[in-house]
Amino acid sequence: MAKVMSVNCGSSSFKFKLYEMPEEKVICNGIVERIGHDDAIFTIKYNGEKITNIVPVADHGVAVQIVIDKMLEMKIIKSIDEIKATGHRIVQGGAYFDRSVPFDEDAYKKIESLIPLAPLHNKAHLTGFDAFKKVLPNTPAVAVFDTAFHQTMAPEDYVFPIPYEYTEKYMIRRYGAHGTSHKYLSEVGAKYIDKEDKKMIICHLGSGASITAVRNGKCVATSMGLTPLGGIEMNSRTGDMDPSVFYQVASCTGKDVETIFQEFNKKSGLYGVSGVSNDSRDVSAKAAEGDYRSQLALDLWGRRVADFIGQYFVRLGGCDLIIFSAGIGENDSGSRKLALTRIQEALGIEIDWKVNDETFGGKEAVLSTPNSKIKVVVIPTDEEVMIARDAYNICLK
Amino acid sequence: MAKVMSVNCGSSSFKFKLYEMPEEKVICNGIVERIGHDDAIFTIKYNGEKITNIVPVADHGVAVQIVIDKMLEMKIIKSIDEIKATGHRIVQGGAYFDRSVPFDEDAYKKIESLIPLAPLHNKAHLTGFDAFKKVLPNTPAVAVFDTAFHQTMAPEDYVFPIPYEYTEKYMIRRYGAHGTSHKYLSEVGAKYIDKEDKKMIICHLGSGASITAVRNGKCVATSMGLTPLGGIEMNSRTGDMDPSVFYQVASCTGKDVETIFQEFNKKSGLYGVSGVSNDSRDVSAKAAEGDYRSQLALDLWGRRVADFIGQYFVRLGGCDLIIFSAGIGENDSGSRKLALTRIQEALGIEIDWKVNDETFGGKEAVLSTPNSKIKVVVIPTDEEVMIARDAYNICLK
Repeated sequence: MAKVMSVNCGSSSFKFKLYEMPEEKVICNGIVERIGHDDAIFTIKYNGEKITNIVPVADHGVAVQIVIDKMLEMKIIKSIDEIKATGHRIVQGGAYFDRSVPFDEDAYKKIESLIPLAPLHNKAHLTGFDAFKKVLPNTPAVAVFDTAFHQTMAPEDYVFPIPYEYTEKYMIRRYGAHGTSHKYLSEVGAKYIDKEDKKMIICHLGSGASITAVRNGKCVATSMGLTPLGGIEMNSRTGDMDPSVFYQVASCTGKDVETIFQEFNKKSGLYGVSGVSNDSRDVSAKAAEGDYRSQLALDLWGRRVADFIGQYFVRLGGCDLIIFSAGIGENDSGSRKLALTRIQEALGIEIDWKVNDETFGGKEAVLSTPNSKIKVVVIPTDEEVMIARDAYNICLK
Repeated sequence: MAKVMSVNCGSSSFKFKLYEMPEEKVICNGIVERIGHDDAIFTIKYNGEKITNIVPVADHGVAVQIVIDKMLEMKIIKSIDEIKATGHRIVQGGAYFDRSVPFDEDAYKKIESLIPLAPLHNKAHLTGFDAFKKVLPNTPAVAVFDTAFHQTMAPEDYVFPIPYEYTEKYMIRRYGAHGTSHKYLSEVGAKYIDKEDKKMIICHLGSGASITAVRNGKCVATSMGLTPLGGIEMNSRTGDMDPSVFYQVASCTGKDVETIFQEFNKKSGLYGVSGVSNDSRDVSAKAAEGDYRSQLALDLWGRRVADFIGQYFVRLGGCDLIIFSAGIGENDSGSRKLALTRIQEALGIEIDWKVNDETFGGKEAVLSTPNSKIKVVVIPTDEEVMIARDAYNICLK
């Protein structure tokens, strides 16, 4: 038995989950938000209790220190030596990492070299790692990459049709995202397929979203591209498009590349089309009131999910299982319906709509009927447990 | 019986085809290239003979004049009054035109207003029209739009998930292209489907390429977007991508939006990935010699064609017929194979590869076997005859 911490450092936040391993029992979890501010918010959940403090948190070092101090104070741990390993989520592992690795100097340097591909994320991950190194100097750490699971893709599935020197020189290619989630879901999903050759399409649909084609546990294609802007329409992101849209927006508005990139990331997708909100629940509510643009935003979303499912159905040479997961995929039956009604005829899918309506809040369920040619399921994802598993397996086994 | 001319004016070229209507008999055809140069090339084909002259051609007006003079000289026509109507190909009709219309002042103004969406093309079309107006002042003309056939798309199939004000204010949306070809092919293709509800996927694959989903003669979705840069990878164009690729190329190279747009149009696709040529035959030859990047460029192309076929299979709720057409689709069995091998398993398609190998040079053929779940055919396209038909029907019937 050993305590292992799953760590997710963003530019101004630090999320953690402490596990008892190998039982995978969650001991406590929490988040520090607004790092760098005098009124940072520190929340910890333990033993059914949720404690929130507003505290000054100058940097990630302070954030890690107050979390550890709180754990000692609450007697969650008796000494820092009890934390036997940490697993750090890393958004961009480039082409270097096809699995989790010990967070050593070599890994550190490679993650650093990839900062241009994920400026906010990779920088924050290293800041977080440095903070842990100070507070828990003797605890071994592993790096767990969002991109690792997608490294099995063939070149025709990750190379962009741009001048090849850009692919080589600037490492501009498809890396994908949410790989840890897709890997988890592909493992849980495997039990639903009673044959050797397992073909599944995994829809990780949150405010960021990616769809992945998985054959026998290996990713063969994924919708997100170089950055999380690619793939399907998302809550505030465009997804893939004709590149002349970028050009035309620049020509018409005179805005610079940076501004347009930010608009395509933050003011587009459901939010941009509806003009309502970047929360799909708000957009759905407005659409239910008859708002044209909200309904259009949702229809576009459903269409793009269906597009990628169709594309991956062909990519895999058929499909046994479609998995819905993440915030929207697990909880929003209406959004699932937008996609399912658009794929059912072509793919011979039959849905039990009552089960669809009743599936939310972390439930695993089979949505399709026994007659359906493809099984459709909802599986709650769990990236943190994958990170804890890798930390345990690499450092302690 | 009446002579009708199909006209296609580019920025530095003028292509024509003279028909006897309504028989649709081609009388002569030809092209003036390098308009604006002292050594322009004028080619005309008549009665099995091909004549080429190098002549100074200052502008489109001169080009039209020398073509008409040549027709008189060769006694193809006895007087200019014999040409009873002209049909002008217009690349961008925006949301104004869902069919061909008389080329009147209103049409002229609307085509002019759409120049920002197709700067080179629409401008050249108007220059060409003006030239005809001068040389054949009494001949009625019609405008035939590449975009008209796609105007039946639903908003979820043409709206981009960008801030909606850009859609409204700047008319940035999907218009599609090659509509006249897709319409022609959907009409010819209909005979292959023995049922009321006809679902087809049309692959117009030339150096520019677009794939269209057609149900009962109406376009429901098409791959090209705002400009011909969208959709699948093409000979020198990228097709759809994660928009962060545009951003990242700008960030890494410091190049401006205009330069990158030009690179994505002219130095990408098969050419950009292979580094060999923007002619798919050269790339295929290199790939056959074992060149890695050439093979990759072709594989990417096959993958993107397969992606869109998969997407439209779902979009249509199934598919009865897949049509290959245009330069590559009609003539290049190897390129067709790249796409067909990638879709056959999922869609239950069975191809007679011998027929595929033997189909080129303007032949219409069924490539699939009787066991195939979807019929696959090659149909040579003919945009000119569609233009002549509309000119005849609108002006002379």
